[in-house]
Amino acid sequence: MSQSAAGRRDRSSGRRRGGRGRERTQAVAPAFVRRQIPFYEFLGEEGLVKLEEQADWIIQEIGIEFRDDPKALEIWKTAGADVKGTRVRLERGMARELCKTAPREFTQHARNPAHSVVIGGDNQVFAPVYGAPFVRDLEGGRRYGTLDDFEKMVKIVAQLPSLHHSGLVICEPCDQPVSKRHLDMVYAHMKYGDKPHLGAITEKSRAEDSVDMARILHGADFMEENCVIMGNVNTNSPLLVDRVVTEAAQVYCGANQGLVVAPFILGGAMGPVTTAASIAQAFAEAMIVGAFTQLVRPGAPYVMGNFLSSMSLRTGAPTFGMPEPVISNLVIGQLARRLGVPLRCGGSLTASKLADAQAAYESADSMLSTVLGGANFVLHAAGWLEGGLCTGYEKLVMDADRLGAYQVMLGGLPLDDNALARDAYAEVEPAGHFLGCSHTMANYETAYYDAQLSDSNNVEQWEEEGGKDMAQRAFERWNRLLKEYQEPTLDAAKDEELRSYIERRKAEIPDAWY
Amino acid sequence: MSQSAAGRRDRSSGRRRGGRGRERTQAVAPAFVRRQIPFYEFLGEEGLVKLEEQADWIIQEIGIEFRDDPKALEIWKTAGADVKGTRVRLERGMARELCKTAPREFTQHARNPAHSVVIGGDNQVFAPVYGAPFVRDLEGGRRYGTLDDFEKMVKIVAQLPSLHHSGLVICEPCDQPVSKRHLDMVYAHMKYGDKPHLGAITEKSRAEDSVDMARILHGADFMEENCVIMGNVNTNSPLLVDRVVTEAAQVYCGANQGLVVAPFILGGAMGPVTTAASIAQAFAEAMIVGAFTQLVRPGAPYVMGNFLSSMSLRTGAPTFGMPEPVISNLVIGQLARRLGVPLRCGGSLTASKLADAQAAYESADSMLSTVLGGANFVLHAAGWLEGGLCTGYEKLVMDADRLGAYQVMLGGLPLDDNALARDAYAEVEPAGHFLGCSHTMANYETAYYDAQLSDSNNVEQWEEEGGKDMAQRAFERWNRLLKEYQEPTLDAAKDEELRSYIERRKAEIPDAWY
Repeated sequence: MSQSAAGRRDRSSGRRRGGRGRERTQAVAPAFVRRQIPFYEFLGEEGLVKLEEQADWIIQEIGIEFRDDPKALEIWKTAGADVKGTRVRLERGMARELCKTAPREFTQHARNPAHSVVIGGDNQVFAPVYGAPFVRDLEGGRRYGTLDDFEKMVKIVAQLPSLHHSGLVICEPCDQPVSKRHLDMVYAHMKYGDKPHLGAITEKSRAEDSVDMARILHGADFMEENCVIMGNVNTNSPLLVDRVVTEAAQVYCGANQGLVVAPFILGGAMGPVTTAASIAQAFAEAMIVGAFTQLVRPGAPYVMGNFLSSMSLRTGAPTFGMPEPVISNLVIGQLARRLGVPLRCGGSLTASKLADAQAAYESADSMLSTVLGGANFVLHAAGWLEGGLCTGYEKLVMDADRLGAYQVMLGGLPLDDNALARDAYAEVEPAGHFLGCSHTMANYETAYYDAQLSDSNNVEQWEEEGGKDMAQRAFERWNRLLKEYQEPTLDAAKDEELRSYIERRKAEIPDAWY
Repeated sequence: MSQSAAGRRDRSSGRRRGGRGRERTQAVAPAFVRRQIPFYEFLGEEGLVKLEEQADWIIQEIGIEFRDDPKALEIWKTAGADVKGTRVRLERGMARELCKTAPREFTQHARNPAHSVVIGGDNQVFAPVYGAPFVRDLEGGRRYGTLDDFEKMVKIVAQLPSLHHSGLVICEPCDQPVSKRHLDMVYAHMKYGDKPHLGAITEKSRAEDSVDMARILHGADFMEENCVIMGNVNTNSPLLVDRVVTEAAQVYCGANQGLVVAPFILGGAMGPVTTAASIAQAFAEAMIVGAFTQLVRPGAPYVMGNFLSSMSLRTGAPTFGMPEPVISNLVIGQLARRLGVPLRCGGSLTASKLADAQAAYESADSMLSTVLGGANFVLHAAGWLEGGLCTGYEKLVMDADRLGAYQVMLGGLPLDDNALARDAYAEVEPAGHFLGCSHTMANYETAYYDAQLSDSNNVEQWEEEGGKDMAQRAFERWNRLLKEYQEPTLDAAKDEELRSYIERRKAEIPDAWY
């Protein structure tokens, strides 16, 4: 098989791409995954009904605290909820009913239309890690993230075809004031990439800045009818929804933009230590906030999130990639489909500090269950280390390489005449070989996933090439991607307007480091 | 959570085990996995029928070569097959019909009855890597395996609770003559472990030696009615069955012992380059040998095997853990269940030379699909490196640690009142925490899988403890296991008889290195 012919086709898109030495051209990669395989239905009807009843029971009998946002309580009262102090209780079925106006699937438009993604239904969208204050790479070690790291990572993500979405806080740019860094982050995603991304949520004004900047880029009129930006918020488990969440809902959903709501539950701390109870609690929390988004604006895009973590029984530290969260990824997928809303869950999660075997085992088990469970929007799909405290440069490109494998798997098994290859048996006798036969020649370019970072050479070749482990190859790859990076064109007038907006806002906002 | 209380319970068995510093006691671990979760049904009815029809077509129209064993051809002629020269063709449905006498599930008895395993049905049995000529560890690097390595690995496997079966050729003892090493290997499994294991197959006399030694250990009468040993053979794909296979069938199945038949197909070489065609071909090859085993002795234990590998499009080298073989693990599971026979497939496979992130990503994706596909007997479940050419000491214990996680997952999601934890919400208010509540205290010991080799400490603690990666922790663990190893008692008279048998056979057999 000649090297020049090999590796030319991007199996996941079916279209041609560069040869051996070149990276995939993102323009021909699919913008997101259209799932062709069944969901893995882990629980039967009886089990699912039990979990739904438990969530209904929590919402009706225990209730959810909505704190620090009187307007949110007003919205609930107007809707007919039972509001006592800050405790909100809904009649059984009311939250589910309210969620019905949320779209089953919606498009998040990118500034490059080729990168717009459909979130929900049978579609899956992968985005990088979110929120890590630290970064790590093989050369520089572990350190606080900076805006320089942040911009580099946006540029790397822009070139990885299996990351369909740019996320937002790929790492925290810790050298910038907390009160202003959201402006730098949103701008970097708009300027250095052209995939869809998220906006800030940590404070109402920062959410508003994000939506305002999106208006500059996409146009206010377009945004009245279309989603171009989303916020991603966590509830304060157990059963507490604070102002960050309700204000983000008012800003994003109020502008007909998307909101992702992900309860983060470390079992035994923010929820019961048993997995079933934590799943039901997370479902209750996400569902009531989903209902709230639809009260703010019926029809606004809402993504039900879920983030369950298990715990080390020795130390109480969170663990990742373990069987209990793997099960929760599968079950929550079933619950989301029954509710009829898009789902965010899972990712390439690990507690490992390094891009070592622990990181890979845990990330793979976590991510494959995410894929089988049908998560529609997968934040943390690449780059996560150290329980989310650190973004790994190597981990980012390593995970993304495996995401490509999942995309192929999601494409299903072709069973047409060519796939069954009966003609090949006329050409190849029993005890012969298929290496040069017509069927092989006609199909080998697209037959198998071409992993960039897996070394399949024999040990002698591998040693000759330096005996590198995967992390070392990944280090070379992300550096090469940065070197080869080409900035996508951004309309000069819009760029100017964005820069002016940021300049003005930075002048208005005092520096703050909290 | 106190360290003394934590980690005391073996979640997968539900029974008590040692505290933090101690390894699990294998006596209380489950001997195999009784699956409580659904199979992942990847293909629908139409697709499965297509693959079955293709296999029938291959067996009826192309036929399978049975070479170098005239007796095998006689058996086929007597059964009414169409035999022309060495080509055997069966009427559509005949192979399937013959396979019906093979048991859906059977017990392979271990010399320690607590370690007997049930193979087939909803049961899953994990065994270590098979056949690697090289070994690798962090200190000694890569080298040819020796009998010393072999015995060490048997002792390690004996202590790993998630390896239910001892396999056979954990590594090749390359310092022993090829003509005699089977005697040393079978003896080591009988002497240093008490889990079930395989026998030799490379030549008829070696298979006979294995069965003879099993008769010494288990008794000839017992073996007439019970399986205590199995052979594991590969067909010579495409569509060639040689004497090694048919003679092993006559020796093992003739003695009512088990035979595992696994076509090994590197797509594009030993089968068509398209995955569907290779699955159908493997199914055809395994089914016709299954039929042959039942002609030898109806009711003899037969395990349908499958080993499909994808190929690097750049070099033609086999690749592992890639989406195409992952799909084949799922699909072949469906075909085996429809045929009604136990299945061997998958494992913790990788092309990586090291126990690095590549090894872990590939092994995890391969193994999790094996688990979801319901493989009943999983050879290569731990220790495999370098496309099967090398057994890694570290990889062996790392993979086994993850097998424990799969066992928990296979146990399903408890949904009883305790799991739903409604009482906990009476004790813990919204915005509170569950850390010390009664439900947590009553459940935390069994709530989560306790991985031995995953580090979940924070970065400061991890650095203080040496900043070790998983491979380094694995190196320490297998060395500790060897140090703590205690030999299981073997009846002195049987041991003596085994030793005499080996002495006699070694005197009879000339040294040969091929």
